[in-house]
Amino acid sequence: MRVSPEPAYADIEAAAKRLADEAVVTPLLRSRALDETLNARILIKPETLQRTGSFKFRGAFNKISRLAEATPRPRAIVAFSSGNHAQGVAAAAAALGFPATIVMPADAPPIKIANTRGYGAEVVFYDRYKEDREAVAGGIAAERGAALVRPYDDPDIIAGQGTVGREIAEQAKSRGLAPDIALVPCGGGGLVSGTALALTQHFPAIRIHACEPEGFDDTARSLARHQRIANEPGARSICDALLGASPGEITFPINDRLLAGGLVVSDREVAAAMAYGFRVLKLVVEPGGAVGLAALLARKIDVAGRTVVLVLSGGNIDAEGFAKIAASAR
Amino acid sequence: MRVSPEPAYADIEAAAKRLADEAVVTPLLRSRALDETLNARILIKPETLQRTGSFKFRGAFNKISRLAEATPRPRAIVAFSSGNHAQGVAAAAAALGFPATIVMPADAPPIKIANTRGYGAEVVFYDRYKEDREAVAGGIAAERGAALVRPYDDPDIIAGQGTVGREIAEQAKSRGLAPDIALVPCGGGGLVSGTALALTQHFPAIRIHACEPEGFDDTARSLARHQRIANEPGARSICDALLGASPGEITFPINDRLLAGGLVVSDREVAAAMAYGFRVLKLVVEPGGAVGLAALLARKIDVAGRTVVLVLSGGNIDAEGFAKIAASAR
Repeated sequence: MRVSPEPAYADIEAAAKRLADEAVVTPLLRSRALDETLNARILIKPETLQRTGSFKFRGAFNKISRLAEATPRPRAIVAFSSGNHAQGVAAAAAALGFPATIVMPADAPPIKIANTRGYGAEVVFYDRYKEDREAVAGGIAAERGAALVRPYDDPDIIAGQGTVGREIAEQAKSRGLAPDIALVPCGGGGLVSGTALALTQHFPAIRIHACEPEGFDDTARSLARHQRIANEPGARSICDALLGASPGEITFPINDRLLAGGLVVSDREVAAAMAYGFRVLKLVVEPGGAVGLAALLARKIDVAGRTVVLVLSGGNIDAEGFAKIAASAR
Repeated sequence: MRVSPEPAYADIEAAAKRLADEAVVTPLLRSRALDETLNARILIKPETLQRTGSFKFRGAFNKISRLAEATPRPRAIVAFSSGNHAQGVAAAAAALGFPATIVMPADAPPIKIANTRGYGAEVVFYDRYKEDREAVAGGIAAERGAALVRPYDDPDIIAGQGTVGREIAEQAKSRGLAPDIALVPCGGGGLVSGTALALTQHFPAIRIHACEPEGFDDTARSLARHQRIANEPGARSICDALLGASPGEITFPINDRLLAGGLVVSDREVAAAMAYGFRVLKLVVEPGGAVGLAALLARKIDVAGRTVVLVLSGGNIDAEGFAKIAASAR
C-alpha cells in the first residue's frame, strides 16, 4: 500500500504537540492603523517573532524530531537553503542533538549565514546560478550518513508549517472571528500548503492566496493552469527567501486543491510594505516575509469589510540592508 | 475631605474596562535567544505594538474618557509632550470627538510630529531649552476653554498606564508564571508608578526598577534619597521620550513606596539594545523604549535564574534615525 505523501490534519495536530515546548506561539496582532487604511479586519500572524526569526523552525523541528525516533537514527542532518530553512534546521538539529551541515548560496544575506553558524551548524557554500544545491547536499548526506531535510517537499515539513494555520484558527476562534481571506508568502509552497490544510479544516469557505514576488510567480501561474510551471531562469528579486525554481511535487497538489489563487508583487511594492511595517506596525519584516502585506497595501485584492489573515513569515534582515530597502521605497 | 491623588487598584480596573475596545492588548512575548543570553526567563511586554506606537494611548484615553463625562464638558483638549503623549492624546481626543492642540518641542522627532498631526491635532512648537511648556499649554487652555491633559501627574493617566501592569499580571498568571523582577522605562514616572500599583497587587514580592538614561536619572537618585531631586540642566540624551526635569508630584510617592530602585544606562547602551531588538527580537524600539533592555544587556542587574518583566514602552522612530543609531552601536 502506497502511503499518501500529503499530511493529514492529524499530522498537523501531532506536529503541534511536538512543538509545544520548543516553538513560540506567535501572537495574532491587530493594528488599528492598518485596519483603517484597508477598511478591513487584518489578523497579523508575525512569524518574524518565531524562534530563528521565521516559521521555518516549525517544519524543521517536526521533521528532525521524527528522524530522532527513526531506525536507524541518522548520524547527522544536512539541508540546502537560502537562509531561513538553514537557521530553522540548524537550531532544531542542535536542540535534538544532531550535527548539521547546511548548503547555502554564496550570496545569502550575511545575517542568515552568521545565524546559521551561530546555531552550531557547518555552512557549505554553492553558486545559486551555476550549481545544483540538491546534488551538493545529496553528496554530503551520502558521505556522512546524514539525513537530508528538504525545505518544503516533505509531509513532516508541511505538517510543521501547518501549525501556523492551526494556531491562527484557534486564536481567531477564541476572539469569535472567522477569517474570509488569508494571504501567505510562497516560495516552494510548504508554508501556504500546511497553513491551507489547517485553515480550511476550521474555515471551509476561506479564500487563501499564495503571495509571490515578480519573476518568481511560479505558484500563481501554476494555480491558474492547474499544472506545475517553472520560473524563467535569470530573474532577480530582493525576496531572497522566495527564489525557488518551481512549485513542489507534494505542495502543489495541496495548493491546487485548496487555494483561491496567487498574488504577485514587485520589489518596489515589497520595499514599501517593509517600510510600512517598520513605521506603522513596528515590526522588522524581511522582503520575502512582506509579500502578503505588499499585496494588501498595493491593493492586489479587494478586502473591504473582510476579515483577513496576514502571515508575515520572516524577519531575518540586518539593519543596514533594511535601511537601504526602506530608503528605496521613498 | 481631601481625595488622595493616587489611583487605587480599582481605578486601574475601571481604566481597563474603558480601554477594552480601544487599546491593543499587547502580547507577552518570549525570546529563547534573549533568555539564553541572560540565563533568565524574560517576559517582554511590547507597548511598541500599542495604538499610536506607545503605552501613552492608555493613559490619554482613560483621562479623556473621564473628561467626556465631566460637567461642564471641556470644549477641547490641550497637552504638552515630546511626542508619545502627543500622539496618545491626539488619537484619544479624536476617538472621543474633541479637537486637540499639542505643544511640542521644536526638536521633537519628525515621525512624532507627523503622526500627531495625522491623528488630527494642531501642533504648536516651543523651545525645549528656553520656554516653559506648561505655561505655553496653560495659556492655550485658558484661551480655548480646553482641558489640559498632563503627561503623568494625574491619577487618571497613572491608572490608564497601570493597565499595562494589570495585563502583564493576567498574562503571566495564565502561564503559571510569577515574575521576580520588572524593568520599566521612566520619564516622569507615570508608566512605572501605574505598572507598580498593578504588579504589586498581584505579586507583592516583585522588585520593580525604573530605568532611565544618563543625565536624566532623577528618579533613580530621588529613590535613593527618598526625596524628589531634579536633573542638572543642559544634559542631552538620545532618549527623547525620557527628558523630564524631575519626578512627578503624584508619581514619585508611589514609586518611592513600591519600587526597589533605579537603573541608569548610557546612550551607547541604549543604541546597542535597539540594535539587538532589531536583529534578535525583530521589534522596532525607540531609544526611550529600550532603556530596560539596555539595562539587562549591559548587566546593570543580576537576573540569573529569575523571571523578569521587561516593558518596551514605545517604537516611534523613523527608519533613517534608527539606522543611524544602530550603526553607532557597532
